Amino acid sequence: MATQRAVRLSDVAAVAGVSKATASKALNDSPVVSPATKARVREAAERLDFRPNALALSFASGRSRTVGLLTHRATATFSRPVVMGAILRLGSRERAVLVFDGRIDAHRDMAESVRTLQDRRIDGLLVVGSGYARLTPSITHHFDVPVTYAFAATDDPDDVVFLPDNERAGYLAGRHLLERGRTSIAHVTADADDLAVRRREEGFRRALAEAGTEAVTTLHGTWRREWGERAVEILDDGPVPVDGIFCGNDHIAFGVLDALEASGRRVPDDVAVVGVDNWEEVVVDQKLRRLTTVDLDLTGVGRVAADNVIDPAAHGGERFVEPALVLGPST
Amino acid sequence: MATQRAVRLSDVAAVAGVSKATASKALNDSPVVSPATKARVREAAERLDFRPNALALSFASGRSRTVGLLTHRATATFSRPVVMGAILRLGSRERAVLVFDGRIDAHRDMAESVRTLQDRRIDGLLVVGSGYARLTPSITHHFDVPVTYAFAATDDPDDVVFLPDNERAGYLAGRHLLERGRTSIAHVTADADDLAVRRREEGFRRALAEAGTEAVTTLHGTWRREWGERAVEILDDGPVPVDGIFCGNDHIAFGVLDALEASGRRVPDDVAVVGVDNWEEVVVDQKLRRLTTVDLDLTGVGRVAADNVIDPAAHGGERFVEPALVLGPST
Repeated sequence: MATQRAVRLSDVAAVAGVSKATASKALNDSPVVSPATKARVREAAERLDFRPNALALSFASGRSRTVGLLTHRATATFSRPVVMGAILRLGSRERAVLVFDGRIDAHRDMAESVRTLQDRRIDGLLVVGSGYARLTPSITHHFDVPVTYAFAATDDPDDVVFLPDNERAGYLAGRHLLERGRTSIAHVTADADDLAVRRREEGFRRALAEAGTEAVTTLHGTWRREWGERAVEILDDGPVPVDGIFCGNDHIAFGVLDALEASGRRVPDDVAVVGVDNWEEVVVDQKLRRLTTVDLDLTGVGRVAADNVIDPAAHGGERFVEPALVLGPST
Repeated sequence: MATQRAVRLSDVAAVAGVSKATASKALNDSPVVSPATKARVREAAERLDFRPNALALSFASGRSRTVGLLTHRATATFSRPVVMGAILRLGSRERAVLVFDGRIDAHRDMAESVRTLQDRRIDGLLVVGSGYARLTPSITHHFDVPVTYAFAATDDPDDVVFLPDNERAGYLAGRHLLERGRTSIAHVTADADDLAVRRREEGFRRALAEAGTEAVTTLHGTWRREWGERAVEILDDGPVPVDGIFCGNDHIAFGVLDALEASGRRVPDDVAVVGVDNWEEVVVDQKLRRLTTVDLDLTGVGRVAADNVIDPAAHGGERFVEPALVLGPST
């Protein structure tokens, strides 16, 4: 391979009988070079298997083939798959990524990150948030390259934003419990202050409404396993026995499973359970899977957002990535 | 901030009373520019708060401030933290990362990745492996920039390689069980064909030997939870009761914990248990921690390897990253 690196622009220029500057312009498709000359230079380049130095090429074209990636907490549980999905997709499309992480690099505040990115030539910027419980202040106006947001809603409706589809996740969970013949379904979830909680609940209600039914009850608490355990006690004290429980996340669902099994109920025969997050996917040993769940495909959110950095959408707005139902022994 | 971007090299040149070319050479510390001129240009640049375009600067200096990152399976459980640690460190040191992942991008084989990286101007290359059960063929000779390896041992002893310290992990686990007053300690681990298994066992034995004792027994099986459960049965059938178990990984340890608790033993009062991997760190809800474990700090392996890409070590060889004992309720 080393020999192929030895072919230089000057070799191509000599073969084509033009100056180095003209050869460079021809290869960069400059309008000042005639079509005939361009053809001659390209033919020489192909014959010599000339592979132009990417840095020189990007300098000539004004593009760096480098993308900025700005995030607050890249290692946070739910940001991590978004970041991984984005950097792998950018890599496979041969873009370099300049990563700024607000948590790792705490001495540098966001304004300084923005300034450093401005100084560095980038073709586009990807901002990865940590969910959309809160709005992220838009920084699009600081840049003259396209800015894309992933896993973050901004305060500017013109921004292009990629999000997991929590409404659809709730819908898929509700529809699945109905398809499993459940007729008395409860929802156990976290605090309704959280936008993800509200969206999942809306989708769940929509699925049940489409089937002409509604939830037995919705219990709001925390995202934790202990809340799932406690919620089963509350449901047991209620007037109507349930045969299906949609849990707002997998942690709640694990608590629900433990409490159901501890009290002698069979899962899924007596009660079917669905969670959200596909937490068990992260566990190495897939044989341990206990739960049917909805995977929000956060890696996919990172991937499509990365694609948008390279080929920006013409119009702003929120784009939702389709979640996937993952079957396990709990339904 | 936008106004600061307006300061151009030509402004600096005009203020310093030199040509643009001379200003550029002065800022790039070229030997052809006199010290007096350099000082004048720099003084003008500072006064104007001139921040040179990084792309132009890197073109002039011949450096791209871009690092290649080549990996086989970036999303594999144990490669992922190494990749995350590396990209965040490279970002905080303002290096862009060009990621090639062999699994994500299956149509492109390693040779093609190498060739693409050669064509792209990079200042250094980081190869992230997936453990060192097998040797990775060295690709250092394909590049004229420094190549660093993380989480991968190569077949070339001159390569600079960063690895987790499995021997030290076993040593820390053994010493901790001794410090907890355990006198009858067993080791339950995976197949001895695996280099990580052998290294952890060596460190464990060394800790016990330093205290003038040795393991009751070492049981080799798989990395799975089921093996941990089964191993407790085997230990129970043995001639000597144990009061401490060092498990080769956390999955085995979870199986051991379940089997001990199912048979009425108290952990840690009757039997103390230590794992390896700090798997529970990945779990969101830290209140669920059951296990004392040794964290191999794979993120740290990625970080120090990234540092080496930027400031390469003068000599090849294996460098080990210190693991950390993480205390939990099992000891």
